[in-house]
Amino acid sequence: MTVQTVSTNRSFDGVQGVYRHTSRATGTDMVFSVFVPPHAEGTKLPVVWYLSGLTCTHANVTEKGEFRRLCADLGLIFVAPDTSPRGEGVADDAAEAYDFGLGAGFYVDAVEAPFAAHYRMWSYVTEELPKLIADNFPADPTRQSIMGHSMGGHGALTIGLTHPDRFRAVSAFSPIVAPSQVPWGEKALGGYLGNDRAAWRKHDAVALIEDGARYPELLVDQGDADPFLAEQLKPHLLAQACDKAGITLLLRLQPGYDHSYFFISTFMGDHLRWHAERLGQPKR
Amino acid sequence: MTVQTVSTNRSFDGVQGVYRHTSRATGTDMVFSVFVPPHAEGTKLPVVWYLSGLTCTHANVTEKGEFRRLCADLGLIFVAPDTSPRGEGVADDAAEAYDFGLGAGFYVDAVEAPFAAHYRMWSYVTEELPKLIADNFPADPTRQSIMGHSMGGHGALTIGLTHPDRFRAVSAFSPIVAPSQVPWGEKALGGYLGNDRAAWRKHDAVALIEDGARYPELLVDQGDADPFLAEQLKPHLLAQACDKAGITLLLRLQPGYDHSYFFISTFMGDHLRWHAERLGQPKR
Repeated sequence: MTVQTVSTNRSFDGVQGVYRHTSRATGTDMVFSVFVPPHAEGTKLPVVWYLSGLTCTHANVTEKGEFRRLCADLGLIFVAPDTSPRGEGVADDAAEAYDFGLGAGFYVDAVEAPFAAHYRMWSYVTEELPKLIADNFPADPTRQSIMGHSMGGHGALTIGLTHPDRFRAVSAFSPIVAPSQVPWGEKALGGYLGNDRAAWRKHDAVALIEDGARYPELLVDQGDADPFLAEQLKPHLLAQACDKAGITLLLRLQPGYDHSYFFISTFMGDHLRWHAERLGQPKR
Repeated sequence: MTVQTVSTNRSFDGVQGVYRHTSRATGTDMVFSVFVPPHAEGTKLPVVWYLSGLTCTHANVTEKGEFRRLCADLGLIFVAPDTSPRGEGVADDAAEAYDFGLGAGFYVDAVEAPFAAHYRMWSYVTEELPKLIADNFPADPTRQSIMGHSMGGHGALTIGLTHPDRFRAVSAFSPIVAPSQVPWGEKALGGYLGNDRAAWRKHDAVALIEDGARYPELLVDQGDADPFLAEQLKPHLLAQACDKAGITLLLRLQPGYDHSYFFISTFMGDHLRWHAERLGQPKR
Protein backbone atom coordinates (compact mmCIF):
# COMPACT_ATOMS: atom_id res chain seq x y z
CA MET A 1 0.00 0.00 0.00
CA THR A 2 1.63 3.25 -1.10
CA VAL A 3 1.20 6.37 0.94
CA GLN A 4 1.98 9.72 -0.62
CA THR A 5 2.97 12.61 1.63
CA VAL A 6 0.94 15.74 0.88
CA SER A 7 2.61 17.88 3.55
CA THR A 8 4.48 17.67 6.83
CA ASN A 9 4.91 20.49 9.33
CA ARG A 10 6.79 20.47 12.59
CA SER A 11 4.47 21.35 15.44
CA PHE A 12 4.83 20.99 19.22
CA ASP A 13 8.08 19.11 18.54
CA GLY A 14 6.19 16.43 16.61
CA VAL A 15 5.14 16.12 12.98
CA GLN A 16 1.72 17.03 11.61
CA GLY A 17 1.39 15.20 8.31
CA VAL A 18 -1.23 15.00 5.60
CA TYR A 19 -1.20 11.90 3.39
CA ARG A 20 -2.96 10.50 0.34
CA HIS A 21 -3.43 6.92 -0.80
CA THR A 22 -5.57 4.93 -3.19
CA SER A 23 -8.16 3.12 -1.11
CA ARG A 24 -9.33 -0.38 -1.98
CA ALA A 25 -12.34 0.08 0.27
CA THR A 26 -13.70 3.20 -1.43
CA GLY A 27 -12.11 2.78 -4.85
CA THR A 28 -10.95 6.41 -4.67
CA ASP A 29 -7.97 8.38 -3.47
CA MET A 30 -8.38 9.22 0.21
CA VAL A 31 -6.63 11.93 2.24
CA PHE A 32 -6.03 11.74 5.99
CA SER A 33 -3.92 13.52 8.58
CA VAL A 34 -1.67 12.05 11.27
CA PHE A 35 0.08 13.83 14.12
CA VAL A 36 3.05 11.93 15.48
CA PRO A 37 4.30 13.35 18.79
CA PRO A 38 7.97 13.53 19.71
CA HIS A 39 9.16 10.08 20.77
CA ALA A 40 12.26 7.98 21.18
CA GLU A 41 13.33 6.11 18.02
CA GLY A 42 11.73 2.68 17.94
CA THR A 43 8.96 3.48 20.44
CA LYS A 44 5.43 2.41 19.52
CA LEU A 45 2.73 4.88 20.52
CA PRO A 46 -1.00 4.60 21.17
CA VAL A 47 -3.36 5.87 18.48
CA VAL A 48 -6.38 8.14 18.97
CA TRP A 49 -8.85 8.08 16.08
CA TYR A 50 -10.86 11.25 15.44
CA LEU A 51 -13.90 11.04 13.17
CA SER A 52 -15.21 14.33 11.81
CA GLY A 53 -18.72 15.63 11.27
CA LEU A 54 -20.86 16.60 8.29
CA THR A 55 -19.12 18.67 5.55
CA CYS A 56 -15.66 18.12 7.08
CA THR A 57 -12.47 16.67 5.69
CA HIS A 58 -9.33 15.78 7.70
CA ALA A 59 -8.49 19.50 7.59
CA ASN A 60 -11.08 20.90 10.00
CA VAL A 61 -9.84 19.21 13.15
CA THR A 62 -6.24 19.38 11.94
CA GLU A 63 -6.47 23.17 11.77
CA LYS A 64 -8.95 23.97 14.54
CA GLY A 65 -8.93 21.03 16.96
CA GLU A 66 -6.09 22.19 19.25
CA PHE A 67 -5.06 18.59 19.91
CA ARG A 68 -1.32 18.75 19.17
CA ARG A 69 -0.07 20.29 22.41
CA LEU A 70 -1.70 17.56 24.49
CA CYS A 71 -0.89 14.74 22.08
CA ALA A 72 2.74 15.86 22.29
CA ASP A 73 2.60 15.96 26.10
CA LEU A 74 0.78 12.66 26.43
CA GLY A 75 2.54 10.74 23.65
CA LEU A 76 -0.50 10.09 21.45
CA ILE A 77 -0.70 9.62 17.69
CA PHE A 78 -3.80 11.42 16.36
CA VAL A 79 -5.39 10.20 13.12
CA ALA A 80 -8.11 12.15 11.26
CA PRO A 81 -9.68 10.51 8.18
CA ASP A 82 -11.95 12.18 5.65
CA THR A 83 -15.73 11.80 6.04
CA SER A 84 -16.57 10.36 2.61
CA PRO A 85 -15.09 9.23 -0.67
CA ARG A 86 -14.53 12.08 -3.13
CA GLY A 87 -13.54 12.53 -6.75
CA GLU A 88 -14.79 11.81 -10.24
CA GLY A 89 -17.54 9.22 -10.41
CA VAL A 90 -18.44 9.48 -6.72
CA ALA A 91 -22.20 9.97 -6.37
CA ASP A 92 -23.46 12.93 -4.36
CA ASP A 93 -26.80 13.89 -2.86
CA ALA A 94 -29.23 14.68 -5.69
CA ALA A 95 -29.65 18.24 -4.42
CA GLU A 96 -26.02 18.48 -3.26
CA ALA A 97 -27.27 18.91 0.31
CA TYR A 98 -24.63 19.05 3.06
CA ASP A 99 -26.07 16.15 5.03
CA PHE A 100 -25.84 13.29 2.52
CA GLY A 101 -23.30 12.17 -0.09
CA LEU A 102 -20.00 14.06 -0.28
CA GLY A 103 -18.72 14.97 3.17
CA ALA A 104 -21.45 12.87 4.77
CA GLY A 105 -20.45 9.20 4.57
CA PHE A 106 -21.90 8.41 8.02
CA TYR A 107 -19.29 5.68 8.57
CA VAL A 108 -21.34 2.94 6.91
CA ASP A 109 -20.82 0.59 3.95
CA ALA A 110 -23.58 1.61 1.54
CA VAL A 111 -25.62 -1.10 -0.18
CA GLU A 112 -27.95 1.14 -2.19
CA ALA A 113 -27.07 2.24 -5.73
CA PRO A 114 -25.36 4.47 -6.72
CA PHE A 115 -23.64 4.85 -3.32
CA ALA A 116 -22.55 1.23 -2.83
CA ALA A 117 -19.77 1.70 -5.39
CA HIS A 118 -17.66 4.05 -3.24
CA TYR A 119 -19.35 4.86 0.10
CA ARG A 120 -17.62 2.21 2.20
CA MET A 121 -16.42 4.33 5.10
CA TRP A 122 -17.06 1.59 7.70
CA SER A 123 -14.60 -0.75 6.00
CA TYR A 124 -12.23 2.11 5.32
CA VAL A 125 -12.09 3.39 8.90
CA THR A 126 -12.27 0.03 10.71
CA GLU A 127 -10.08 -2.11 8.45
CA GLU A 128 -8.10 -0.51 5.67
CA LEU A 129 -6.85 2.66 7.35
CA PRO A 130 -5.88 0.99 10.66
CA LYS A 131 -3.68 -1.50 8.72
CA LEU A 132 -2.11 1.34 6.80
CA ILE A 133 -1.44 3.33 10.00
CA ALA A 134 0.10 0.29 11.70
CA ASP A 135 2.34 -0.33 8.69
CA ASN A 136 3.50 3.25 8.11
CA PHE A 137 3.62 4.99 11.49
CA PRO A 138 5.11 4.18 14.92
CA ALA A 139 1.71 2.94 16.11
CA ASP A 140 0.92 0.31 18.71
CA PRO A 141 -2.22 -1.42 17.37
CA THR A 142 -2.91 -2.93 20.81
CA ARG A 143 -3.49 0.57 22.18
CA GLN A 144 -6.15 2.43 20.21
CA SER A 145 -9.02 4.70 21.16
CA ILE A 146 -11.67 6.58 19.22
CA MET A 147 -13.50 9.90 19.42
CA GLY A 148 -15.52 12.02 17.03
CA HIS A 149 -17.79 15.01 16.54
CA SER A 150 -21.46 15.01 15.52
CA MET A 151 -21.69 12.52 12.60
CA GLY A 152 -18.17 11.51 13.67
CA GLY A 153 -19.40 11.09 17.23
CA HIS A 154 -21.95 8.68 15.79
CA GLY A 155 -19.08 6.92 14.03
CA ALA A 156 -16.95 6.76 17.17
CA LEU A 157 -19.80 5.39 19.29
CA THR A 158 -20.95 2.76 16.77
CA ILE A 159 -17.42 1.62 15.96
CA GLY A 160 -16.44 1.56 19.64
CA LEU A 161 -19.56 -0.41 20.60
CA THR A 162 -18.92 -2.86 17.75
CA HIS A 163 -15.21 -3.33 18.58
CA PRO A 164 -15.05 -2.92 22.37
CA ASP A 165 -11.88 -5.02 22.55
CA ARG A 166 -10.01 -2.88 20.06
CA PHE A 167 -10.59 0.53 21.64
CA ARG A 168 -9.54 1.32 25.18
CA ALA A 169 -11.51 4.58 25.25
CA VAL A 170 -14.51 5.94 23.37
CA SER A 171 -15.73 9.55 23.56
CA ALA A 172 -17.68 12.05 21.52
CA PHE A 173 -18.44 15.72 21.09
CA SER A 174 -22.14 16.43 20.36
CA PRO A 175 -22.72 13.04 18.73
CA ILE A 176 -25.69 11.83 16.72
CA VAL A 177 -26.61 9.07 19.17
CA ALA A 178 -29.75 7.64 17.55
CA PRO A 179 -29.65 8.26 13.80
CA SER A 180 -32.67 6.02 13.22
CA GLN A 181 -34.77 8.51 15.19
CA VAL A 182 -33.62 11.87 13.73
CA PRO A 183 -33.80 13.55 10.29
CA TRP A 184 -30.04 13.53 9.51
CA GLY A 185 -29.83 9.83 10.28
CA GLU A 186 -33.08 8.77 8.61
CA LYS A 187 -31.97 10.45 5.40
CA ALA A 188 -28.46 8.99 5.51
CA LEU A 189 -29.20 5.46 6.71
CA GLY A 190 -32.15 5.22 4.32
CA GLY A 191 -30.08 6.51 1.44
CA TYR A 192 -27.06 4.30 2.05
CA LEU A 193 -28.66 1.18 3.57
CA GLY A 194 -32.18 1.16 2.14
CA ASN A 195 -35.59 1.15 3.75
CA ASP A 196 -35.26 -1.94 5.94
CA ARG A 197 -34.80 -0.28 9.31
CA ALA A 198 -33.55 -3.51 10.88
CA ALA A 199 -30.32 -3.01 8.89
CA TRP A 200 -29.87 0.42 10.42
CA ARG A 201 -29.54 -0.89 13.97
CA LYS A 202 -25.85 -1.80 13.57
CA HIS A 203 -25.23 1.87 12.78
CA ASP A 204 -27.17 3.45 15.61
CA ALA A 205 -25.48 3.67 19.02
CA VAL A 206 -28.73 3.55 20.98
CA ALA A 207 -30.03 0.57 18.95
CA LEU A 208 -26.68 -1.23 19.32
CA ILE A 209 -26.91 -0.91 23.10
CA GLU A 210 -30.55 -2.04 23.05
CA ASP A 211 -29.43 -5.06 21.03
CA GLY A 212 -26.75 -5.99 23.56
CA ALA A 213 -23.58 -4.08 22.65
CA ARG A 214 -21.63 -3.05 25.73
CA TYR A 215 -18.75 -0.73 26.55
CA PRO A 216 -17.59 -0.02 30.11
CA GLU A 217 -17.76 3.80 30.08
CA LEU A 218 -18.38 6.58 27.60
CA LEU A 219 -17.53 10.31 27.74
CA VAL A 220 -19.79 12.73 25.85
CA ASP A 221 -19.62 16.53 25.83
CA GLN A 222 -22.61 18.42 24.48
CA GLY A 223 -23.13 22.18 24.27
CA ASP A 224 -26.51 23.33 25.54
CA ALA A 225 -26.58 26.15 22.95
CA ASP A 226 -26.03 23.69 20.10
CA PRO A 227 -28.65 24.46 17.44
CA PHE A 228 -28.89 20.75 16.55
CA LEU A 229 -29.39 19.54 20.10
CA ALA A 230 -33.15 19.07 20.21
CA GLU A 231 -33.83 17.81 16.69
CA GLN A 232 -30.75 15.84 15.64
CA LEU A 233 -28.59 14.93 18.63
CA LYS A 234 -30.93 14.00 21.53
CA PRO A 235 -28.26 12.85 24.00
CA HIS A 236 -30.94 11.85 26.50
CA LEU A 237 -31.70 8.84 24.28
CA LEU A 238 -28.12 7.65 24.83
CA ALA A 239 -28.39 8.38 28.55
CA GLN A 240 -31.56 6.26 28.79
CA ALA A 241 -30.04 3.39 26.83
CA CYS A 242 -26.82 3.42 28.88
CA ASP A 243 -28.77 3.59 32.11
CA LYS A 244 -30.82 0.56 31.18
CA ALA A 245 -27.75 -1.37 30.01
CA GLY A 246 -25.54 -0.53 32.96
CA ILE A 247 -23.07 1.43 30.86
CA THR A 248 -21.38 4.31 32.70
CA LEU A 249 -21.98 7.44 30.64
CA LEU A 250 -20.27 10.67 31.63
CA LEU A 251 -22.56 13.09 29.74
CA ARG A 252 -21.56 16.70 30.33
CA LEU A 253 -23.97 19.42 29.19
CA GLN A 254 -21.72 22.44 28.65
CA PRO A 255 -23.56 25.71 29.23
CA GLY A 256 -23.43 28.26 26.42
CA TYR A 257 -21.45 26.09 24.02
CA ASP A 258 -22.52 25.45 20.43
CA HIS A 259 -21.67 22.85 17.76
CA SER A 260 -18.45 24.47 16.48
CA TYR A 261 -14.73 23.89 16.85
CA PHE A 262 -14.73 26.73 19.41
CA PHE A 263 -16.61 24.18 21.55
CA ILE A 264 -14.58 21.12 20.53
CA SER A 265 -11.20 22.77 21.10
CA THR A 266 -12.29 23.85 24.58
CA PHE A 267 -12.86 20.27 25.72
CA MET A 268 -10.35 18.46 23.49
CA GLY A 269 -7.84 18.47 26.36
CA ASP A 270 -10.27 16.71 28.72
CA HIS A 271 -10.98 14.05 26.10
CA LEU A 272 -7.32 13.45 25.31
CA ARG A 273 -6.46 13.11 29.00
CA TRP A 274 -9.38 10.64 29.41
CA HIS A 275 -8.05 8.64 26.45
CA ALA A 276 -4.40 8.81 27.57
CA GLU A 277 -5.26 7.47 31.00
CA ARG A 278 -7.09 4.49 29.48
CA LEU A 279 -4.30 3.96 26.93
CA GLY A 280 -1.77 3.63 29.73
CA GLN A 281 0.07 6.88 29.03
CA PRO A 282 1.55 8.78 31.98
CA LYS A 283 -0.55 11.68 33.27
CA ARG A 284 0.49 15.27 32.62
CA MET B 1 -19.00 54.34 16.25
CA THR B 2 -21.30 51.39 15.53
CA VAL B 3 -19.97 47.88 15.83
CA GLN B 4 -21.91 45.09 14.21
CA THR B 5 -21.56 41.57 15.61
CA VAL B 6 -20.81 39.04 12.87
CA SER B 7 -20.62 36.05 15.22
CA THR B 8 -19.94 35.09 18.81
CA ASN B 9 -19.00 31.63 20.05
CA ARG B 10 -18.38 30.51 23.57
CA SER B 11 -14.87 29.07 23.89
CA PHE B 12 -12.72 28.27 26.91
CA ASP B 13 -15.45 29.89 29.04
CA GLY B 14 -14.92 33.23 27.26
CA VAL B 15 -16.39 34.68 24.09
CA GLN B 16 -14.74 34.60 20.67
CA GLY B 17 -16.39 37.34 18.63
CA VAL B 18 -16.08 38.61 15.08
CA TYR B 19 -17.18 42.18 14.44
CA ARG B 20 -17.62 44.58 11.54
CA HIS B 21 -17.59 48.38 11.48
CA THR B 22 -17.24 51.21 9.01
CA SER B 23 -13.74 52.59 9.39
CA ARG B 24 -13.02 56.30 9.06
CA ALA B 25 -9.33 55.53 8.63
CA THR B 26 -9.69 53.22 5.64
CA GLY B 27 -13.04 54.44 4.32
CA THR B 28 -14.20 50.82 4.12
CA ASP B 29 -15.94 48.27 6.27
CA MET B 30 -13.38 46.44 8.40
CA VAL B 31 -13.73 43.09 10.17
CA PHE B 32 -11.80 42.11 13.29
CA SER B 33 -11.96 39.43 15.97
CA VAL B 34 -11.82 39.79 19.75
CA PHE B 35 -11.55 37.06 22.36
CA VAL B 36 -12.75 38.16 25.78
CA PRO B 37 -11.76 35.70 28.52
CA PRO B 38 -14.02 34.87 31.46
CA HIS B 39 -13.88 37.70 33.97
CA ALA B 40 -15.80 39.23 36.83
CA GLU B 41 -18.41 41.81 35.81
CA GLY B 42 -16.85 45.27 35.74
CA THR B 43 -13.22 44.07 35.54
CA LYS B 44 -11.00 45.75 32.96
CA LEU B 45 -8.56 43.40 31.24
CA PRO B 46 -5.26 43.89 29.44
CA VAL B 47 -5.30 43.72 25.66
CA VAL B 48 -2.93 41.75 23.42
CA TRP B 49 -2.87 42.92 19.81
CA TYR B 50 -2.06 40.32 17.16
CA LEU B 51 -1.15 41.53 13.66
CA SER B 52 -1.35 38.94 10.90
CA GLY B 53 0.86 38.24 7.91
CA LEU B 54 0.51 38.43 4.14
CA THR B 55 -2.77 37.09 2.67
CA CYS B 56 -4.39 36.78 6.10
CA THR B 57 -7.58 38.20 7.56
CA HIS B 58 -8.60 38.11 11.23
CA ALA B 59 -9.73 34.53 10.60
CA ASN B 60 -6.35 32.77 10.28
CA VAL B 61 -5.14 33.32 13.82
CA THR B 62 -8.68 33.12 15.18
CA GLU B 63 -9.02 29.59 13.80
CA LYS B 64 -5.47 28.29 13.99
CA GLY B 65 -3.62 30.39 16.60
CA GLU B 66 -4.47 28.30 19.69
CA PHE B 67 -4.46 31.42 21.88
CA ARG B 68 -7.80 31.08 23.65
CA ARG B 69 -6.87 28.53 26.31
CA LEU B 70 -4.03 30.68 27.58
CA CYS B 71 -5.86 33.99 27.19
CA ALA B 72 -8.63 32.46 29.31
CA ASP B 73 -6.13 31.26 31.92
CA LEU B 74 -4.16 34.50 31.96
CA GLY B 75 -7.06 36.95 31.66
CA LEU B 76 -6.07 38.54 28.35
CA ILE B 77 -8.24 40.11 25.66
CA PHE B 78 -6.90 39.12 22.23
CA VAL B 79 -7.61 41.40 19.25
CA ALA B 80 -6.91 40.40 15.64
CA PRO B 81 -7.49 43.02 12.91
CA ASP B 82 -7.54 42.42 9.17
CA THR B 83 -4.34 43.09 7.17
CA SER B 84 -5.71 45.55 4.61
CA PRO B 85 -8.80 47.41 3.53
CA ARG B 86 -11.09 45.37 1.28
CA GLY B 87 -14.19 45.90 -0.82
CA GLU B 88 -15.37 47.72 -3.89
CA GLY B 89 -13.11 50.53 -4.98
CA VAL B 90 -10.09 49.31 -3.00
CA ALA B 91 -7.04 49.17 -5.28
CA ASP B 92 -5.12 45.90 -5.50
CA ASP B 93 -1.71 44.93 -6.82
CA ALA B 94 -1.72 45.29 -10.62
CA ALA B 95 -0.96 41.59 -11.04
CA GLU B 96 -3.03 40.61 -7.98
CA ALA B 97 0.14 39.30 -6.33
CA TYR B 98 -0.16 38.06 -2.74
CA ASP B 99 2.50 40.41 -1.37
CA PHE B 100 1.02 43.83 -2.18
CA GLY B 101 -2.46 45.35 -2.10
CA LEU B 102 -5.29 43.26 -0.72
CA GLY B 103 -4.20 41.24 2.29
CA ALA B 104 -0.86 43.07 2.34
CA GLY B 105 -1.37 46.51 3.89
CA PHE B 106 2.01 46.41 5.68
CA TYR B 107 0.65 48.54 8.53
CA VAL B 108 1.47 51.88 6.85
CA ASP B 109 -0.57 54.90 5.76
CA ALA B 110 -0.07 54.95 1.98
CA VAL B 111 0.67 58.25 0.25
CA GLU B 112 0.93 56.96 -3.31
CA ALA B 113 -2.08 56.85 -5.64
CA PRO B 114 -4.26 54.83 -5.89
CA PHE B 115 -3.45 53.30 -2.49
CA ALA B 116 -3.60 56.47 -0.38
CA ALA B 117 -7.39 56.46 -0.60
CA HIS B 118 -7.91 53.36 1.58
CA TYR B 119 -4.59 51.80 2.67
CA ARG B 120 -4.29 53.53 6.04
CA MET B 121 -3.59 50.53 8.24
CA TRP B 122 -1.17 52.45 10.52
CA SER B 123 -3.89 54.90 11.55
CA TYR B 124 -6.43 52.12 11.71
CA VAL B 125 -4.41 49.85 13.99
CA THR B 126 -2.77 52.51 16.17
CA GLU B 127 -5.66 54.98 16.54
CA GLU B 128 -9.11 54.04 15.34
CA LEU B 129 -9.33 50.40 16.40
CA PRO B 130 -7.80 50.94 19.88
CA LYS B 131 -10.45 53.60 20.61
CA LEU B 132 -13.18 51.29 19.39
CA ILE B 133 -11.88 48.41 21.52
CA ALA B 134 -11.64 50.64 24.60
CA ASP B 135 -15.21 51.86 24.05
CA ASN B 136 -16.84 48.50 23.33
CA PHE B 137 -14.98 45.84 25.30
CA PRO B 138 -13.86 45.44 28.94
CA ALA B 139 -10.38 46.64 28.00
CA ASP B 140 -7.83 48.47 30.15
CA PRO B 141 -6.08 50.85 27.71
CA THR B 142 -3.23 51.35 30.18
CA ARG B 143 -2.29 47.69 29.76
CA GLN B 144 -1.71 46.79 26.13
CA SER B 145 0.86 44.66 24.34
CA ILE B 146 1.45 43.72 20.73
CA MET B 147 2.63 40.72 18.73
CA GLY B 148 2.46 39.64 15.12
CA HIS B 149 3.56 37.19 12.45
CA SER B 150 5.71 37.89 9.39
CA MET B 151 4.32 41.13 7.91
CA GLY B 152 2.40 41.41 11.18
CA GLY B 153 5.66 40.90 13.09
CA HIS B 154 6.95 43.88 11.14
CA GLY B 155 3.82 45.76 12.21
CA ALA B 156 4.19 44.76 15.86
CA LEU B 157 7.87 45.75 15.98
CA THR B 158 7.43 49.11 14.21
CA ILE B 159 4.32 50.03 16.20
CA GLY B 160 5.92 48.91 19.46
CA LEU B 161 9.12 50.84 18.77
CA THR B 162 7.10 53.95 17.85
CA HIS B 163 4.84 53.73 20.92
CA PRO B 164 7.06 52.22 23.62
CA ASP B 165 4.96 53.82 26.37
CA ARG B 166 1.74 52.30 25.14
CA PHE B 167 2.81 48.66 24.89
CA ARG B 168 4.17 46.77 27.88
CA ALA B 169 5.37 43.86 25.74
CA VAL B 170 6.33 43.44 22.09
CA SER B 171 7.01 40.10 20.40
CA ALA B 172 6.95 38.53 16.96
CA PHE B 173 6.87 35.24 15.09
CA SER B 174 9.15 35.19 12.02
CA PRO B 175 8.93 38.97 11.49
CA ILE B 176 10.07 41.02 8.52
CA VAL B 177 12.62 43.04 10.50
CA ALA B 178 14.15 45.21 7.77
CA PRO B 179 11.63 45.71 4.97
CA SER B 180 13.83 48.34 3.29
CA GLN B 181 16.40 45.62 2.65
CA VAL B 182 14.24 42.74 1.35
CA PRO B 183 12.03 42.17 -1.74
CA TRP B 184 8.66 42.00 0.09
CA GLY B 185 9.38 45.26 1.87
CA GLU B 186 10.91 47.12 -1.05
CA LYS B 187 7.85 46.35 -3.15
CA ALA B 188 5.39 47.32 -0.42
CA LEU B 189 7.08 50.39 1.00
CA GLY B 190 7.88 51.65 -2.51
CA GLY B 191 4.32 51.04 -3.65
CA TYR B 192 2.62 52.61 -0.65
CA LEU B 193 5.14 55.32 0.36
CA GLY B 194 6.94 56.15 -2.90
CA ASN B 195 10.57 56.03 -3.92
CA ASP B 196 12.04 58.30 -1.22
CA ARG B 197 13.64 55.69 1.00
CA ALA B 198 14.02 58.17 3.85
CA ALA B 199 10.24 57.93 4.32
CA TRP B 200 10.51 54.17 4.69
CA ARG B 201 12.63 54.35 7.84
CA LYS B 202 9.65 54.89 10.15
CA HIS B 203 8.27 51.59 8.90
CA ASP B 204 11.39 49.48 9.24
CA ALA B 205 12.23 48.08 12.69
CA VAL B 206 15.97 47.98 12.07
CA ALA B 207 16.01 51.55 10.68
CA LEU B 208 13.86 52.79 13.58
CA ILE B 209 16.39 51.39 16.05
CA GLU B 210 19.28 52.87 14.05
CA ASP B 211 17.46 56.20 14.20
CA GLY B 212 17.12 56.06 17.97
CA ALA B 213 13.91 54.18 18.76
CA ARG B 214 14.25 52.06 21.88
CA TYR B 215 12.32 49.32 23.63
CA PRO B 216 13.60 47.46 26.68
CA GLU B 217 13.30 43.87 25.46
CA LEU B 218 11.91 42.01 22.48
CA LEU B 219 10.95 38.35 22.03
CA VAL B 220 11.23 36.84 18.53
CA ASP B 221 10.69 33.22 17.51
CA GLN B 222 11.93 32.14 14.08
CA GLY B 223 11.79 28.68 12.52
CA ASP B 224 15.05 27.61 10.93
CA ALA B 225 13.16 25.68 8.22
CA ASP B 226 11.20 28.80 7.25
CA PRO B 227 11.43 29.12 3.45
CA PHE B 228 11.46 32.94 3.75
CA LEU B 229 14.22 33.11 6.33
CA ALA B 230 17.21 33.94 4.15
CA GLU B 231 15.65 36.24 1.58
CA GLN B 232 12.83 38.09 3.36
CA LEU B 233 13.19 37.83 7.14
CA LYS B 234 16.89 38.12 8.01
CA PRO B 235 16.53 38.20 11.81
CA HIS B 236 20.29 38.72 12.19
CA LEU B 237 19.77 42.31 11.01
CA LEU B 238 17.51 42.88 14.02
CA ALA B 239 19.99 41.13 16.29
CA GLN B 240 22.79 43.41 15.08
CA ALA B 241 20.70 46.58 15.48
CA CYS B 242 19.53 45.56 18.97
CA ASP B 243 23.04 44.67 20.00
CA LYS B 244 24.36 48.05 18.93
CA ALA B 245 21.48 49.89 20.60
CA GLY B 246 21.58 47.99 23.87
CA ILE B 247 18.13 46.46 23.35
CA THR B 248 17.69 43.01 24.90
CA LEU B 249 16.51 40.71 22.12
CA LEU B 250 15.50 37.17 22.95
CA LEU B 251 15.78 35.66 19.45
CA ARG B 252 15.01 31.95 19.43
CA LEU B 253 15.82 29.97 16.32
CA GLN B 254 13.46 27.00 16.46
CA PRO B 255 14.88 23.93 14.75
CA GLY B 256 12.74 22.31 12.06
CA TYR B 257 9.91 24.85 12.24
CA ASP B 258 8.53 26.63 9.18
CA HIS B 259 6.46 29.79 8.57
CA SER B 260 3.01 28.27 9.21
CA TYR B 261 0.46 28.33 12.01
CA PHE B 262 1.77 24.89 13.00
CA PHE B 263 4.84 26.88 14.11
CA ILE B 264 2.98 29.87 15.55
CA SER B 265 0.56 27.76 17.61
CA THR B 266 3.50 25.83 19.10
CA PHE B 267 5.03 28.97 20.60
CA MET B 268 1.88 31.05 21.13
CA GLY B 269 1.80 29.95 24.77
CA ASP B 270 5.33 31.19 25.43
CA HIS B 271 4.49 34.56 23.90
CA LEU B 272 1.25 34.95 25.82
CA ARG B 273 2.97 34.10 29.11
CA TRP B 274 5.72 36.65 28.27
CA HIS B 275 3.05 39.26 27.58
CA ALA B 276 0.94 38.39 30.64
CA GLU B 277 3.92 38.74 32.94
CA ARG B 278 4.67 42.22 31.58
CA LEU B 279 0.99 43.16 31.66
CA GLY B 280 0.85 42.39 35.36
CA GLN B 281 -1.34 39.30 35.09
CA PRO B 282 -0.80 36.46 37.57
CA LYS B 283 1.32 33.57 36.33
CA ARG B 284 -0.27 30.22 35.46
